[in-house]
Amino acid sequence: MDCIFCKIIKGEIPSYKIYEDEKTYAFLDIACDSFGHTLVIPKKHCQNALDCDDEYLQATITTVKKIAKHYVENCGFDGVNIFNASGESAQQTVFHLHFHIIPRKKEDGVDIWPLKEKYDLDLKDVCDKLKLN
Amino acid sequence: MDCIFCKIIKGEIPSYKIYEDEKTYAFLDIACDSFGHTLVIPKKHCQNALDCDDEYLQATITTVKKIAKHYVENCGFDGVNIFNASGESAQQTVFHLHFHIIPRKKEDGVDIWPLKEKYDLDLKDVCDKLKLN
Repeated sequence: MDCIFCKIIKGEIPSYKIYEDEKTYAFLDIACDSFGHTLVIPKKHCQNALDCDDEYLQATITTVKKIAKHYVENCGFDGVNIFNASGESAQQTVFHLHFHIIPRKKEDGVDIWPLKEKYDLDLKDVCDKLKLN
Repeated sequence: MDCIFCKIIKGEIPSYKIYEDEKTYAFLDIACDSFGHTLVIPKKHCQNALDCDDEYLQATITTVKKIAKHYVENCGFDGVNIFNASGESAQQTVFHLHFHIIPRKKEDGVDIWPLKEKYDLDLKDVCDKLKLN
């Protein structure tokens, strides 16, 4: 399989590794959306959050938390944003599940949220259409 | 504890519930950043991803996946964005862990990523400062 993140895990493509354990791997995103912009990925290939098996998804979010705590407790950050795109329509570009961590500081000028637009919706109607149980 | 999300879980404040199980609760975000903008929260209170215990964090991301799959398989969406803010500096405003789900469709006009700015950084230097193992 020709997956760039699988190659990073195997060391076939170099990366700036932040953390690694049995099931997960974390490295700096060369996109550099902020200082410390980090990606956390499962070592077992899946496309995104929709097809990741629960065991690896849970391991991945646990590593996200571990790194987030490390950034806040040891690296001078105050918080983090965690972000994932699952699906091409969600602006996913590499099809191996990855959670972005954007480490944050007060008044760092990063503005990740909220989205620009708000929608005026009938939430009762939306809920009826979407509810799962 | 005066937590609005704990009150939603208990039913003391009404919500548009999408899903509920033993450890998690999902409902529409009244902020309406998009059609189907959903929040998934653990039933055990924690501030954010930094202080959530692993069991509830894992249950929460598993529910995020379950709802994301439901939205794509049954509700006409093509993908989702998953988003979390942990810490005031990360633009968190309600201090009970919550993952946002933004359901996406092709050409829906939602633009959640990437951030506006890119940074020109020495990643070797960043990695040396941040690496965990």
